[in-house]
Amino acid sequence: MLPKTGSFQFHIESYVCDFTEKATLPVMTSFILDAASIHAQQRGFGYEDISKDSIAWVLSRLSIEIYEYPVSNQSIKVETWIEDVGRFFTQRCFQFLDENEKTLGYARSVWAAIDMQTRRPVDLLQWRFDLTNYIEKEKICPIEKMAKILPVNDIDPVMGYSVRYSDIDINKHMNSMKYIEHVINIFDLEIFKEKFIHKFEIVYLMEGMFGDKLKLYQQQISENEYLIDTKKGEESICRTRIIWKNNL
Amino acid sequence: MLPKTGSFQFHIESYVCDFTEKATLPVMTSFILDAASIHAQQRGFGYEDISKDSIAWVLSRLSIEIYEYPVSNQSIKVETWIEDVGRFFTQRCFQFLDENEKTLGYARSVWAAIDMQTRRPVDLLQWRFDLTNYIEKEKICPIEKMAKILPVNDIDPVMGYSVRYSDIDINKHMNSMKYIEHVINIFDLEIFKEKFIHKFEIVYLMEGMFGDKLKLYQQQISENEYLIDTKKGEESICRTRIIWKNNL
Repeated sequence: MLPKTGSFQFHIESYVCDFTEKATLPVMTSFILDAASIHAQQRGFGYEDISKDSIAWVLSRLSIEIYEYPVSNQSIKVETWIEDVGRFFTQRCFQFLDENEKTLGYARSVWAAIDMQTRRPVDLLQWRFDLTNYIEKEKICPIEKMAKILPVNDIDPVMGYSVRYSDIDINKHMNSMKYIEHVINIFDLEIFKEKFIHKFEIVYLMEGMFGDKLKLYQQQISENEYLIDTKKGEESICRTRIIWKNNL
Repeated sequence: MLPKTGSFQFHIESYVCDFTEKATLPVMTSFILDAASIHAQQRGFGYEDISKDSIAWVLSRLSIEIYEYPVSNQSIKVETWIEDVGRFFTQRCFQFLDENEKTLGYARSVWAAIDMQTRRPVDLLQWRFDLTNYIEKEKICPIEKMAKILPVNDIDPVMGYSVRYSDIDINKHMNSMKYIEHVINIFDLEIFKEKFIHKFEIVYLMEGMFGDKLKLYQQQISENEYLIDTKKGEESICRTRIIWKNNL
Protein backbone atom coordinates (compact mmCIF):
# COMPACT_ATOMS: atom_id res chain seq x y z
CA MET A 1 0.00 0.00 0.00
CA LEU A 2 1.22 3.48 -0.90
CA PRO A 3 1.73 6.00 1.93
CA LYS A 4 -1.47 7.77 2.92
CA THR A 5 -0.03 11.17 2.17
CA GLY A 6 1.12 11.86 -1.37
CA SER A 7 3.87 14.35 -2.10
CA PHE A 8 4.19 16.08 -5.48
CA GLN A 9 6.71 18.54 -6.87
CA PHE A 10 5.77 21.49 -9.07
CA HIS A 11 7.99 24.02 -10.76
CA ILE A 12 6.79 27.62 -10.96
CA GLU A 13 7.27 28.54 -14.62
CA SER A 14 7.55 32.27 -15.25
CA TYR A 15 4.53 32.27 -17.54
CA VAL A 16 2.21 31.04 -14.76
CA CYS A 17 3.20 34.05 -12.63
CA ASP A 18 1.43 37.35 -12.45
CA PHE A 19 3.21 40.72 -12.71
CA THR A 20 4.38 40.41 -9.08
CA GLU A 21 6.48 37.44 -10.29
CA LYS A 22 4.56 35.09 -8.03
CA ALA A 23 2.30 32.14 -8.82
CA THR A 24 -1.35 33.18 -8.99
CA LEU A 25 -4.18 31.78 -6.90
CA PRO A 26 -5.66 29.89 -9.90
CA VAL A 27 -2.24 28.30 -10.46
CA MET A 28 -2.07 27.24 -6.81
CA THR A 29 -5.55 25.79 -7.34
CA SER A 30 -4.33 23.87 -10.37
CA PHE A 31 -1.58 22.33 -8.20
CA ILE A 32 -4.26 21.35 -5.69
CA LEU A 33 -6.36 19.68 -8.37
CA ASP A 34 -3.30 18.09 -9.93
CA ALA A 35 -2.03 16.66 -6.63
CA ALA A 36 -5.53 15.42 -5.70
CA SER A 37 -5.92 13.80 -9.07
CA ILE A 38 -2.57 11.97 -9.06
CA HIS A 39 -2.93 10.98 -5.38
CA ALA A 40 -6.32 9.38 -6.07
CA GLN A 41 -5.17 7.79 -9.30
CA GLN A 42 -2.12 6.18 -7.71
CA ARG A 43 -4.34 4.74 -4.99
CA GLY A 44 -6.90 3.26 -7.36
CA PHE A 45 -9.81 5.70 -7.04
CA GLY A 46 -8.86 8.32 -9.58
CA TYR A 47 -10.95 9.89 -12.29
CA GLU A 48 -10.24 7.05 -14.76
CA ASP A 49 -11.07 4.30 -12.25
CA ILE A 50 -14.40 5.68 -11.12
CA SER A 51 -15.45 6.91 -14.57
CA LYS A 52 -15.79 3.25 -15.56
CA ASP A 53 -18.88 3.25 -13.30
CA SER A 54 -19.85 6.59 -14.82
CA ILE A 55 -18.97 8.40 -11.61
CA ALA A 56 -16.95 11.60 -11.35
CA TRP A 57 -15.27 13.47 -8.52
CA VAL A 58 -16.93 16.84 -7.99
CA LEU A 59 -15.36 19.57 -5.90
CA SER A 60 -17.91 21.03 -3.50
CA ARG A 61 -15.90 23.41 -1.32
CA LEU A 62 -12.36 24.67 -1.26
CA SER A 63 -10.59 26.81 1.28
CA ILE A 64 -7.03 28.00 0.67
CA GLU A 65 -4.76 29.86 3.07
CA ILE A 66 -1.46 31.15 1.74
CA TYR A 67 1.18 32.81 3.90
CA GLU A 68 3.59 33.32 1.02
CA TYR A 69 3.14 32.67 -2.70
CA PRO A 70 5.99 30.87 -4.44
CA VAL A 71 8.00 32.97 -6.87
CA SER A 72 8.97 32.35 -10.48
CA ASN A 73 11.45 29.55 -11.06
CA GLN A 74 11.04 28.13 -7.54
CA SER A 75 9.98 24.53 -6.95
CA ILE A 76 7.30 23.67 -4.46
CA LYS A 77 6.02 20.50 -2.89
CA VAL A 78 2.34 19.82 -2.43
CA GLU A 79 1.37 17.20 0.10
CA THR A 80 -2.16 15.88 0.06
CA TRP A 81 -4.07 13.47 2.23
CA ILE A 82 -7.60 12.35 3.03
CA GLU A 83 -8.59 13.73 6.40
CA ASP A 84 -12.02 12.22 6.65
CA VAL A 85 -14.63 10.25 4.71
CA GLY A 86 -18.31 10.81 5.39
CA ARG A 87 -21.34 9.34 3.72
CA PHE A 88 -21.56 11.81 0.84
CA PHE A 89 -18.44 13.92 1.24
CA THR A 90 -14.75 13.38 1.76
CA GLN A 91 -12.37 15.98 3.16
CA ARG A 92 -9.01 16.24 1.44
CA CYS A 93 -6.27 18.52 2.77
CA PHE A 94 -3.12 20.01 1.28
CA GLN A 95 0.11 21.55 2.52
CA PHE A 96 2.36 23.72 0.34
CA LEU A 97 6.08 23.68 1.15
CA ASP A 98 9.04 25.45 -0.40
CA GLU A 99 12.44 23.91 -1.21
CA ASN A 100 13.57 24.37 2.41
CA GLU A 101 10.48 22.62 3.78
CA LYS A 102 9.01 25.91 4.94
CA THR A 103 5.22 25.86 4.87
CA LEU A 104 3.78 28.32 2.35
CA GLY A 105 0.16 27.52 3.02
CA TYR A 106 -2.60 24.99 3.37
CA ALA A 107 -5.83 24.05 1.68
CA ARG A 108 -8.91 22.10 2.64
CA SER A 109 -11.34 20.66 0.13
CA VAL A 110 -14.63 18.80 0.19
CA TRP A 111 -15.48 16.36 -2.59
CA ALA A 112 -18.46 14.26 -3.62
CA ALA A 113 -18.46 11.35 -6.05
CA ILE A 114 -21.36 12.04 -8.37
CA ASP A 115 -23.18 9.50 -10.50
CA MET A 116 -23.16 11.14 -13.92
CA GLN A 117 -26.46 9.53 -14.91
CA THR A 118 -28.57 10.25 -11.83
CA ARG A 119 -26.53 13.35 -10.74
CA ARG A 120 -26.72 11.97 -7.18
CA PRO A 121 -23.80 11.53 -4.81
CA VAL A 122 -22.49 8.02 -4.18
CA ASP A 123 -22.55 6.69 -0.61
CA LEU A 124 -18.80 6.73 0.03
CA LEU A 125 -19.07 4.40 3.01
CA GLN A 126 -20.68 1.64 0.94
CA TRP A 127 -18.70 2.19 -2.21
CA ARG A 128 -16.60 -0.40 -3.97
CA PHE A 129 -13.70 2.05 -3.75
CA ASP A 130 -12.73 2.11 -0.08
CA LEU A 131 -11.20 5.47 0.76
CA THR A 132 -11.22 4.89 4.53
CA ASN A 133 -8.01 2.81 4.32
CA TYR A 134 -6.26 5.98 3.30
CA ILE A 135 -7.47 8.32 6.03
CA GLU A 136 -4.35 10.04 7.35
CA LYS A 137 -4.24 10.61 11.11
CA GLU A 138 -0.68 11.89 11.32
CA LYS A 139 -1.13 15.14 9.41
CA ILE A 140 -2.92 18.25 10.62
CA CYS A 141 -4.46 20.95 8.47
CA PRO A 142 -4.86 24.17 10.50
CA ILE A 143 -7.64 25.53 8.27
CA GLU A 144 -10.95 25.32 10.07
CA LYS A 145 -13.91 23.70 8.35
CA MET A 146 -15.66 26.18 6.14
CA ALA A 147 -18.61 28.13 7.49
CA LYS A 148 -21.51 29.11 5.28
CA ILE A 149 -20.86 31.95 2.86
CA LEU A 150 -23.73 34.40 2.86
CA PRO A 151 -25.33 35.59 -0.36
CA VAL A 152 -24.60 39.08 -1.65
CA ASN A 153 -27.75 41.11 -2.03
CA ASP A 154 -26.37 43.90 -4.15
CA ILE A 155 -28.48 44.80 -7.18
CA ASP A 156 -25.70 45.90 -9.54
CA PRO A 157 -23.22 43.34 -10.76
CA VAL A 158 -19.55 44.36 -10.86
CA MET A 159 -18.84 42.12 -13.83
CA GLY A 160 -20.53 39.67 -16.16
CA TYR A 161 -19.35 36.92 -18.47
CA SER A 162 -20.66 34.17 -20.68
CA VAL A 163 -19.51 30.60 -20.11
CA ARG A 164 -17.43 29.73 -23.17
CA TYR A 165 -15.46 26.81 -24.57
CA SER A 166 -12.40 27.42 -22.38
CA ASP A 167 -14.56 27.38 -19.23
CA ILE A 168 -15.92 23.89 -19.89
CA ASP A 169 -14.25 20.79 -18.50
CA ILE A 170 -14.25 17.11 -19.35
CA ASN A 171 -17.62 16.64 -17.60
CA LYS A 172 -19.26 19.27 -19.85
CA HIS A 173 -19.62 21.61 -16.87
CA MET A 174 -17.70 24.63 -15.83
CA ASN A 175 -14.12 23.97 -14.71
CA SER A 176 -13.60 24.51 -10.94
CA MET A 177 -10.54 26.66 -11.57
CA LYS A 178 -12.32 28.90 -14.02
CA TYR A 179 -14.90 30.09 -11.48
CA ILE A 180 -11.95 31.26 -9.37
CA GLU A 181 -10.20 32.94 -12.29
CA HIS A 182 -13.34 34.94 -13.13
CA VAL A 183 -13.94 35.87 -9.48
CA ILE A 184 -10.50 37.36 -8.92
CA ASN A 185 -10.75 39.16 -12.25
CA ILE A 186 -13.13 41.64 -10.63
CA PHE A 187 -10.19 43.24 -8.82
CA ASP A 188 -8.10 46.04 -10.22
CA LEU A 189 -4.41 45.41 -10.82
CA GLU A 190 -3.60 48.04 -8.16
CA ILE A 191 -4.72 45.90 -5.23
CA PHE A 192 -2.34 43.11 -6.33
CA LYS A 193 0.56 45.57 -6.02
CA GLU A 194 -0.01 46.19 -2.32
CA LYS A 195 -1.74 43.04 -1.14
CA PHE A 196 -2.03 39.34 -1.74
CA ILE A 197 -4.97 36.95 -1.36
CA HIS A 198 -4.29 35.40 2.01
CA LYS A 199 -7.48 33.40 2.32
CA PHE A 200 -9.84 32.21 -0.36
CA GLU A 201 -13.00 30.20 0.22
CA ILE A 202 -15.36 28.95 -2.44
CA VAL A 203 -18.52 26.92 -2.29
CA TYR A 204 -19.81 25.46 -5.54
CA LEU A 205 -23.61 25.49 -5.59
CA MET A 206 -24.65 24.87 -9.18
CA GLU A 207 -22.82 23.78 -12.27
CA GLY A 208 -22.23 26.43 -14.91
CA MET A 209 -23.09 25.31 -18.43
CA PHE A 210 -21.97 26.48 -21.86
CA GLY A 211 -23.66 29.72 -22.85
CA ASP A 212 -24.76 30.63 -19.31
CA LYS A 213 -24.62 34.36 -18.76
CA LEU A 214 -23.22 34.84 -15.29
CA LYS A 215 -23.07 37.98 -13.17
CA LEU A 216 -20.76 38.72 -10.25
CA TYR A 217 -21.98 40.63 -7.21
CA GLN A 218 -19.55 41.95 -4.67
CA GLN A 219 -19.85 43.03 -1.06
CA GLN A 220 -16.95 44.52 0.84
CA ILE A 221 -17.16 43.37 4.47
CA SER A 222 -14.15 45.21 5.82
CA GLU A 223 -10.99 46.78 4.43
CA ASN A 224 -9.56 43.42 3.41
CA GLU A 225 -12.58 41.13 3.24
CA TYR A 226 -14.90 40.62 0.28
CA LEU A 227 -17.79 38.35 -0.56
CA ILE A 228 -18.38 37.64 -4.24
CA ASP A 229 -21.47 35.88 -5.46
CA THR A 230 -21.56 34.46 -9.00
CA LYS A 231 -25.17 34.23 -10.13
CA LYS A 232 -27.14 32.87 -13.02
CA GLY A 233 -30.30 34.95 -12.88
CA GLU A 234 -31.38 34.84 -9.23
CA GLU A 235 -29.50 31.69 -8.33
CA SER A 236 -25.96 31.47 -6.97
CA ILE A 237 -23.57 29.33 -9.00
CA CYS A 238 -20.80 29.79 -6.45
CA ARG A 239 -20.04 31.99 -3.47
CA THR A 240 -16.59 33.10 -2.45
CA ARG A 241 -14.97 34.91 0.45
CA ILE A 242 -11.62 36.60 -0.04
CA ILE A 243 -9.32 38.00 2.64
CA TRP A 244 -6.45 40.17 1.46
CA LYS A 245 -3.29 40.81 3.43
CA ASN A 246 -0.79 43.63 2.99
CA ASN A 247 2.57 42.66 1.51
CA LEU A 248 5.35 42.57 4.09
CA MET B 1 27.11 20.65 -23.46
CA LEU B 2 23.54 19.46 -23.32
CA PRO B 3 21.99 17.94 -26.45
CA LYS B 4 20.64 20.55 -28.86
CA THR B 5 17.15 19.10 -28.75
CA GLY B 6 15.39 19.00 -25.40
CA SER B 7 12.78 16.38 -24.62
CA PHE B 8 10.09 16.92 -22.00
CA GLN B 9 7.30 14.72 -20.69
CA PHE B 10 3.83 15.99 -19.86
CA HIS B 11 0.91 14.16 -18.40
CA ILE B 12 -2.58 15.03 -19.64
CA GLU B 13 -4.59 15.58 -16.46
CA SER B 14 -8.33 15.17 -16.90
CA TYR B 15 -9.02 18.73 -15.76
CA VAL B 16 -6.97 20.22 -18.62
CA CYS B 17 -9.18 18.39 -21.12
CA ASP B 18 -12.25 19.73 -22.79
CA PHE B 19 -15.54 17.86 -23.03
CA THR B 20 -14.15 15.68 -25.86
CA GLU B 21 -11.71 14.29 -23.25
CA LYS B 22 -8.77 15.65 -25.18
CA ALA B 23 -6.19 18.30 -24.29
CA THR B 24 -7.19 21.73 -25.56
CA LEU B 25 -5.20 23.93 -27.92
CA PRO B 26 -4.30 26.39 -25.10
CA VAL B 27 -3.01 23.44 -23.05
CA MET B 28 -0.86 22.29 -26.00
CA THR B 29 0.39 25.88 -26.15
CA SER B 30 1.26 25.79 -22.47
CA PHE B 31 3.37 22.67 -23.13
CA ILE B 32 5.10 24.56 -25.94
CA LEU B 33 5.89 27.49 -23.66
CA ASP B 34 6.89 25.17 -20.86
CA ALA B 35 9.25 23.12 -23.03
CA ALA B 36 10.75 26.28 -24.57
CA SER B 37 11.24 27.79 -21.14
CA ILE B 38 12.97 24.75 -19.60
CA HIS B 39 15.03 24.10 -22.75
CA ALA B 40 16.39 27.66 -22.68
CA GLN B 41 16.90 27.65 -18.93
CA GLN B 42 18.89 24.41 -18.97
CA ARG B 43 21.12 25.86 -21.69
CA GLY B 44 21.80 29.12 -19.87
CA PHE B 45 19.62 31.59 -21.78
CA GLY B 46 16.32 31.20 -19.96
CA TYR B 47 14.00 33.83 -18.60
CA GLU B 48 15.94 34.15 -15.33
CA ASP B 49 19.32 34.45 -17.05
CA ILE B 50 18.39 37.15 -19.50
CA SER B 51 16.17 39.07 -17.06
CA LYS B 52 19.34 40.01 -15.17
CA ASP B 53 20.06 42.29 -18.16
CA SER B 54 16.41 43.37 -18.09
CA ILE B 55 15.69 41.42 -21.28
CA ALA B 56 12.71 39.16 -21.83
CA TRP B 57 11.79 36.56 -24.42
CA VAL B 58 8.77 37.68 -26.40
CA LEU B 59 6.82 35.35 -28.64
CA SER B 60 6.18 36.95 -32.01
CA ARG B 61 4.57 34.17 -34.08
CA LEU B 62 3.36 30.69 -33.41
CA SER B 63 2.11 28.07 -35.81
CA ILE B 64 0.75 24.77 -34.51
CA GLU B 65 -0.30 21.74 -36.55
CA ILE B 66 -1.96 18.88 -34.72
CA TYR B 67 -2.91 15.57 -36.34
CA GLU B 68 -4.29 14.09 -33.15
CA TYR B 69 -4.81 15.68 -29.73
CA PRO B 70 -3.67 13.62 -26.75
CA VAL B 71 -6.44 12.22 -24.55
CA SER B 72 -6.97 12.42 -20.81
CA ASN B 73 -4.49 10.46 -18.71
CA GLN B 74 -2.06 9.95 -21.59
CA SER B 75 1.55 11.09 -21.38
CA ILE B 76 3.17 12.99 -24.19
CA LYS B 77 6.67 14.02 -25.08
CA VAL B 78 7.49 17.45 -26.42
CA GLU B 79 10.78 17.86 -28.24
CA THR B 80 12.05 21.35 -28.89
CA TRP B 81 15.03 22.74 -30.72
CA ILE B 82 16.37 25.96 -32.21
CA GLU B 83 16.12 25.80 -35.97
CA ASP B 84 17.66 29.12 -36.80
CA VAL B 85 18.94 32.35 -35.25
CA GLY B 86 18.63 35.61 -37.16
CA ARG B 87 19.54 39.11 -36.13
CA PHE B 88 16.30 39.93 -34.32
CA PHE B 89 14.40 36.67 -34.36
CA THR B 90 15.05 33.05 -33.55
CA GLN B 91 12.99 30.14 -34.86
CA ARG B 92 12.20 27.43 -32.34
CA CYS B 93 10.39 24.24 -33.37
CA PHE B 94 8.51 21.54 -31.52
CA GLN B 95 7.39 17.98 -32.10
CA PHE B 96 4.65 16.28 -30.07
CA LEU B 97 4.90 12.50 -29.66
CA ASP B 98 2.71 9.99 -27.88
CA GLU B 99 3.88 7.13 -25.64
CA ASN B 100 4.54 4.95 -28.71
CA GLU B 101 6.67 7.63 -30.38
CA LYS B 102 3.91 8.41 -32.85
CA THR B 103 3.98 12.05 -33.95
CA LEU B 104 0.87 13.95 -32.82
CA GLY B 105 1.86 17.28 -34.29
CA TYR B 106 4.43 20.00 -34.71
CA ALA B 107 4.80 23.67 -33.89
CA ARG B 108 7.00 26.48 -35.14
CA SER B 109 7.60 29.66 -33.18
CA VAL B 110 9.43 32.93 -33.70
CA TRP B 111 10.89 34.77 -30.70
CA ALA B 112 12.59 38.08 -30.07
CA ALA B 113 14.61 39.04 -27.00
CA ILE B 114 13.27 42.43 -26.00
CA ASP B 115 15.03 45.01 -23.86
CA MET B 116 12.41 45.86 -21.24
CA GLN B 117 13.64 49.43 -20.89
CA THR B 118 13.94 50.47 -24.53
CA ARG B 119 11.34 47.95 -25.81
CA ARG B 120 13.74 47.20 -28.69
CA PRO B 121 14.88 43.76 -29.80
CA VAL B 122 18.38 42.63 -28.92
CA ASP B 123 20.74 41.75 -31.80
CA LEU B 124 20.88 37.99 -31.25
CA LEU B 125 24.02 37.59 -33.33
CA GLN B 126 26.01 39.96 -31.12
CA TRP B 127 24.49 38.94 -27.81
CA ARG B 128 26.43 37.68 -24.83
CA PHE B 129 24.12 34.65 -24.87
CA ASP B 130 25.18 32.65 -27.91
CA LEU B 131 22.23 30.64 -29.21
CA THR B 132 23.95 29.61 -32.45
CA ASN B 133 25.82 26.80 -30.66
CA TYR B 134 22.48 25.15 -30.13
CA ILE B 135 21.11 25.30 -33.67
CA GLU B 136 19.88 21.79 -34.43
CA LYS B 137 20.48 20.54 -37.98
CA GLU B 138 19.28 16.97 -37.42
CA LYS B 139 15.61 17.68 -36.83
CA ILE B 140 13.04 18.76 -39.38
CA CYS B 141 9.84 20.64 -38.72
CA PRO B 142 7.41 20.14 -41.63
CA ILE B 143 5.45 23.32 -40.86
CA GLU B 144 6.24 25.97 -43.44
CA LYS B 145 7.27 29.44 -42.31
CA MET B 146 4.24 31.55 -41.58
CA ALA B 147 2.82 33.77 -44.28
CA LYS B 148 1.23 37.11 -43.46
CA ILE B 149 -2.22 36.94 -41.90
CA LEU B 150 -4.52 39.45 -43.53
CA PRO B 151 -6.64 41.82 -41.44
CA VAL B 152 -10.36 41.21 -41.06
CA ASN B 153 -12.37 44.15 -42.32
CA ASP B 154 -15.69 43.21 -40.77
CA ILE B 155 -17.47 46.02 -38.98
CA ASP B 156 -19.26 43.98 -36.33
CA PRO B 157 -17.21 42.20 -33.67
CA VAL B 158 -18.26 38.63 -32.76
CA MET B 159 -17.04 39.00 -29.18
CA GLY B 160 -15.42 41.53 -26.87
CA TYR B 161 -13.54 41.32 -23.61
CA SER B 162 -11.57 43.48 -21.21
CA VAL B 163 -8.02 42.51 -20.31
CA ARG B 164 -8.14 41.52 -16.65
CA TYR B 165 -5.80 40.31 -13.92
CA SER B 166 -5.74 36.70 -15.13
CA ASP B 167 -4.72 37.82 -18.63
CA ILE B 168 -1.59 39.63 -17.44
CA ASP B 169 1.77 37.89 -17.25
CA ILE B 170 5.02 38.46 -15.41
CA ASN B 171 6.02 41.19 -17.91
CA LYS B 172 2.83 43.18 -17.12
CA HIS B 173 1.52 42.44 -20.62
CA MET B 174 -1.04 40.05 -21.86
CA ASN B 175 -0.08 36.38 -21.57
CA SER B 176 0.56 34.73 -24.99
CA MET B 177 -1.70 31.80 -24.12
CA LYS B 178 -4.59 34.04 -23.12
CA TYR B 179 -4.92 35.64 -26.56
CA ILE B 180 -5.41 32.11 -27.92
CA GLU B 181 -7.92 31.16 -25.23
CA HIS B 182 -10.05 34.22 -26.02
CA VAL B 183 -9.81 33.64 -29.77
CA ILE B 184 -11.07 30.07 -29.66
CA ASN B 185 -13.82 31.13 -27.26
CA ILE B 186 -15.66 32.70 -30.19
CA PHE B 187 -16.64 29.21 -31.39
CA ASP B 188 -19.75 27.39 -30.33
CA LEU B 189 -19.38 24.12 -28.46
CA GLU B 190 -21.07 22.34 -31.39
CA ILE B 191 -18.12 22.73 -33.75
CA PHE B 192 -15.82 21.03 -31.21
CA LYS B 193 -18.09 17.98 -31.34
CA GLU B 194 -17.51 17.37 -35.05
CA LYS B 195 -14.15 18.95 -35.71
CA PHE B 196 -10.81 19.73 -34.14
CA ILE B 197 -8.41 22.62 -34.69
CA HIS B 198 -5.89 21.11 -37.07
CA LYS B 199 -3.87 24.23 -37.73
CA PHE B 200 -3.54 27.38 -35.69
CA GLU B 201 -1.43 30.38 -36.58
CA ILE B 202 -1.04 33.52 -34.54
CA VAL B 203 0.97 36.66 -35.05
CA TYR B 204 1.36 38.98 -32.07
CA LEU B 205 1.34 42.61 -33.21
CA MET B 206 0.83 44.69 -30.08
CA GLU B 207 0.93 43.95 -26.41
CA GLY B 208 -2.42 43.92 -24.62
CA MET B 209 -2.44 45.88 -21.38
CA PHE B 210 -4.61 45.73 -18.28
CA GLY B 211 -7.98 47.36 -18.85
CA ASP B 212 -7.76 47.27 -22.66
CA LYS B 213 -11.15 46.64 -24.21
CA LEU B 214 -10.53 44.25 -27.07
CA LYS B 215 -12.88 43.22 -29.85
CA LEU B 216 -12.72 40.11 -32.00
CA TYR B 217 -13.57 40.21 -35.71
CA GLN B 218 -14.07 37.03 -37.65
CA GLN B 219 -13.98 36.17 -41.33
CA GLN B 220 -14.83 32.72 -42.59
CA ILE B 221 -12.61 31.96 -45.61
CA SER B 222 -13.97 28.52 -46.44
CA GLU B 223 -15.92 25.79 -44.67
CA ASN B 224 -13.03 25.03 -42.32
CA GLU B 225 -10.90 28.15 -42.40
CA TYR B 226 -11.31 31.27 -40.29
CA LEU B 227 -9.37 34.46 -39.75
CA ILE B 228 -9.83 36.16 -36.39
CA ASP B 229 -8.50 39.61 -35.72
CA THR B 230 -8.24 40.87 -32.13
CA LYS B 231 -8.34 44.64 -32.14
CA LYS B 232 -7.94 47.52 -29.74
CA GLY B 233 -9.84 50.28 -31.45
CA GLU B 234 -8.62 50.27 -35.05
CA GLU B 235 -5.36 48.47 -34.37
CA SER B 236 -4.76 44.72 -34.44
CA ILE B 237 -3.37 43.24 -31.24
CA CYS B 238 -3.03 39.80 -32.81
CA ARG B 239 -4.22 38.01 -35.93
CA THR B 240 -4.96 34.33 -36.13
CA ARG B 241 -5.81 31.78 -38.77
CA ILE B 242 -7.61 28.58 -37.82
CA ILE B 243 -8.14 25.50 -39.94
CA TRP B 244 -10.58 22.91 -38.64
CA LYS B 245 -10.61 19.28 -39.63
CA ASN B 246 -13.45 16.77 -39.32
CA ASN B 247 -13.03 14.09 -36.67
CA LEU B 248 -12.21 10.70 -38.12
